[in-house]
Amino acid sequence: MRNLYFDGSTTLLTDLYQLTMAYGYWKSGRAQTQANFQLFFRKQPFDGGFSVVCGIEPALEWIENFGFDGSDLEYLGTLTGADDKALFEPKFLDYLGELKLTVNVDAMREGTVCFAQEPLMRVQGGVLECQLLETALLNIVNFQTLIATKSARICLAAGDDGVLEFGARRAQGIDGALSASRAAFVGGCAATSNVLAGKCFGIPTRGTHAHSWVMLFDSELEAFETYAANLPNNVVFLVDTYDTLEGTRHAVTVGKKLRQHGHDLLGIRLDSGDLAYLSIEARKILDEGGFPDAKIYASNDLDEQTIASLKNQGARIGVWGVGTRLVTGNDQPALGGVYKLTAMRDSADEAWQPRIKLSEQTIKISNPGVLGVRRYYSEEDGVRQNMADAIYEEGQAPALGAVIVDPLDAIRRRRVSAKLQHEELLLPAVRDGVRLEANAPLAEAQERARKGLAAFDAGIKRFSNPHRYPAGLEVRLHEKKMAMVESARRQLMDAEEIL
Amino acid sequence: MRNLYFDGSTTLLTDLYQLTMAYGYWKSGRAQTQANFQLFFRKQPFDGGFSVVCGIEPALEWIENFGFDGSDLEYLGTLTGADDKALFEPKFLDYLGELKLTVNVDAMREGTVCFAQEPLMRVQGGVLECQLLETALLNIVNFQTLIATKSARICLAAGDDGVLEFGARRAQGIDGALSASRAAFVGGCAATSNVLAGKCFGIPTRGTHAHSWVMLFDSELEAFETYAANLPNNVVFLVDTYDTLEGTRHAVTVGKKLRQHGHDLLGIRLDSGDLAYLSIEARKILDEGGFPDAKIYASNDLDEQTIASLKNQGARIGVWGVGTRLVTGNDQPALGGVYKLTAMRDSADEAWQPRIKLSEQTIKISNPGVLGVRRYYSEEDGVRQNMADAIYEEGQAPALGAVIVDPLDAIRRRRVSAKLQHEELLLPAVRDGVRLEANAPLAEAQERARKGLAAFDAGIKRFSNPHRYPAGLEVRLHEKKMAMVESARRQLMDAEEIL
Repeated sequence: MRNLYFDGSTTLLTDLYQLTMAYGYWKSGRAQTQANFQLFFRKQPFDGGFSVVCGIEPALEWIENFGFDGSDLEYLGTLTGADDKALFEPKFLDYLGELKLTVNVDAMREGTVCFAQEPLMRVQGGVLECQLLETALLNIVNFQTLIATKSARICLAAGDDGVLEFGARRAQGIDGALSASRAAFVGGCAATSNVLAGKCFGIPTRGTHAHSWVMLFDSELEAFETYAANLPNNVVFLVDTYDTLEGTRHAVTVGKKLRQHGHDLLGIRLDSGDLAYLSIEARKILDEGGFPDAKIYASNDLDEQTIASLKNQGARIGVWGVGTRLVTGNDQPALGGVYKLTAMRDSADEAWQPRIKLSEQTIKISNPGVLGVRRYYSEEDGVRQNMADAIYEEGQAPALGAVIVDPLDAIRRRRVSAKLQHEELLLPAVRDGVRLEANAPLAEAQERARKGLAAFDAGIKRFSNPHRYPAGLEVRLHEKKMAMVESARRQLMDAEEIL
Repeated sequence: MRNLYFDGSTTLLTDLYQLTMAYGYWKSGRAQTQANFQLFFRKQPFDGGFSVVCGIEPALEWIENFGFDGSDLEYLGTLTGADDKALFEPKFLDYLGELKLTVNVDAMREGTVCFAQEPLMRVQGGVLECQLLETALLNIVNFQTLIATKSARICLAAGDDGVLEFGARRAQGIDGALSASRAAFVGGCAATSNVLAGKCFGIPTRGTHAHSWVMLFDSELEAFETYAANLPNNVVFLVDTYDTLEGTRHAVTVGKKLRQHGHDLLGIRLDSGDLAYLSIEARKILDEGGFPDAKIYASNDLDEQTIASLKNQGARIGVWGVGTRLVTGNDQPALGGVYKLTAMRDSADEAWQPRIKLSEQTIKISNPGVLGVRRYYSEEDGVRQNMADAIYEEGQAPALGAVIVDPLDAIRRRRVSAKLQHEELLLPAVRDGVRLEANAPLAEAQERARKGLAAFDAGIKRFSNPHRYPAGLEVRLHEKKMAMVESARRQLMDAEEIL
């Protein structure tokens, strides 16, 4: 295995404070105190109306491969505190070396459409173990959910046109490229230019040639002819190296010769200039030249807004190559997902005690308890329509006709019709440290996202001022949370008076 | 080696079109046509006045480890074209399997301060090889240069205060975190929370505890006491789980006990609320409690603008924990670096022929030829002041007193004083495919960036409307470029008349 950075495990992909806390739990005899952590985000990315969960399977793979190797422990042994003495005692490092996970994890399936405040993953077990997973789970799920959501938005804008992901050269590092290609595919992209992503995840790969190919020849015509002669079954010409419409005429000339040899011109690519005007003019040249089926590919800083605008302008683009603005998230380069302790108990025999963190901002107060998510829907003649999601405390599943409360605005409530069907979104994924299922083919996640989005009202898929889908707290959970907030505030105020 | 994605080489971290072009070059007998590619960006990131080159050494490592393994070739053998027949013939895959790089690479040193249009790397060799390197070099250098630059800006805002990088959980994938930690250190951060980055790159790691530590105990006081008892040499308390100032008083209480055992309270951390007000009030509590040396750490969506603003407001923060907005670049999540063919020749015995790509926009017209960069400076009493950079064609080194021309505005010219000293910025890094030097300790790159920035006028380091440092084309290069643009335009117009 040759790799730039990793010569061992990735278990140290964690913030140091997870390890100092783990040491504190271990030393004070609390490593086995049972904790329930929930991974969720507080706000839909891109000011949008939905998100597409992604990164769950890679996160579960990371858990499967968890374990400190010799070089990890050796490195940890070199860390020191303020007095230049070792931060961790050797016995703790021995303990880490032998640590096998025993956690239980429940998670949404890859590609599920989800909403703010809903737990995407729930991790239960000894607090030491739960804490050591936090950083990696957040890193993986935050980024891939962000990009799958961006991809879904871009694919919605492109409608029936194909979208190709071309972002590797501007992505945030090697895995920023790889996992973006993966998430982009889950969100709906048809293919990637990233060959390593194709190899790792079975994503279709696409690509033709760059400006440099044209520049290496004495003329564009010679460059196109040489390409066609040598790769006749993969001919999409990049036509803007010198002049886009002139290049399109050259493509037609070479396309005609290609046909004489039993192949065809698949299309041309525009990479600069006014894509609306140029695509309309290039379309005429292709049609008049006898190539009505050759597609026009376009690239150059595209995203959902520019694609929607180009389509409004009547652009004749059939395939969209999207790079930088897809793989980085562009206008929002990070999803602010968090992993919060929401319940604890001293041992597995006891009942869970809910926990809450206060904040001056309602949006930052976590929902207490061990929580599940239920999606209500109607289905008629095989057509499904999602109606509402309820976040509820385990053991207090919402009854038919239950009331759900908007977690950010208690005035907004909705009663779930007793006629609806429902499904659970958080499903068992890891039990006693062991993963229950292997990765599914990635196309299944793509299909889940596609079908999932189709079952929601169009209003949530708008880019500006989307409809807010009802995803609320089951009313008893809401009331419990309010009572806990009240009681915690009272204690604080009492404490202030004493001081 | 256990790893999420990589079970083999990373040589397939490339866009498919690099491989289809490579196939075309190979089949048409042009694989050994000599090419000169230059990697550069066109616009300073963050609307700033400078950049810090980073990722050069990892890019050179990637070159060192270049090579298709059996699974790579097997995968490439499965790819098909429009006729469902193989895209690549078996002989080409055999050729790739035996391919050893013979390129020459010149590059700026890690941590060098650089400017738009300057080549950061120059790759010469057979066009097939050069092309196969493009995607990975851009991926690695674009991202790390972006983040090292952001880090330098944040560290400039923080002045003499320490800056810690805390971004792993919101970074763009595993390597988005790792290579951001690396680049943040080069740009000036003192430490990272990312333990794997500490292990891989020797970066100091820092961290204390999270809100969950406090929430697991019956009271904040008990949580602090337990932490201090078990990790007495690493005590920085996070004080905002319930109430920041109340938490600060608890930190003082526990700090006093800690002293009785020969240790000390290193500081407290604020993670929410009005950081200006809270830090001023917390400072009073710490000072009055007998802890004038305990530092106040702050975190919560910080960047160079918020840090500068908090300092203007008199905030008493001593250490800045910066996460999401540092490791993603936030307002600019990608550097638009490109890798352009600028010269070619049929064999290594011939003279280079410069190449140019036209564009409607001046900024997008590449600088032709095999280019170097020379930095002019004065040095008095050991104090260095950088005055101007000249981009020039190899073999036409600028004379003393040479004129340089702004590549975006030919009216802006400057004569370089004959009294100045100079240094070359592009240095030999790879010869005949072999890297010349191993990685230097990362602290050397950090020191190069720090000293480098100190040698520039303060005006280029402003956040708004920075001074534009003169980094221009040596006048003969400028004139040659203009003549080539003119000639290429004329050819195009002639062609249009014929059609």
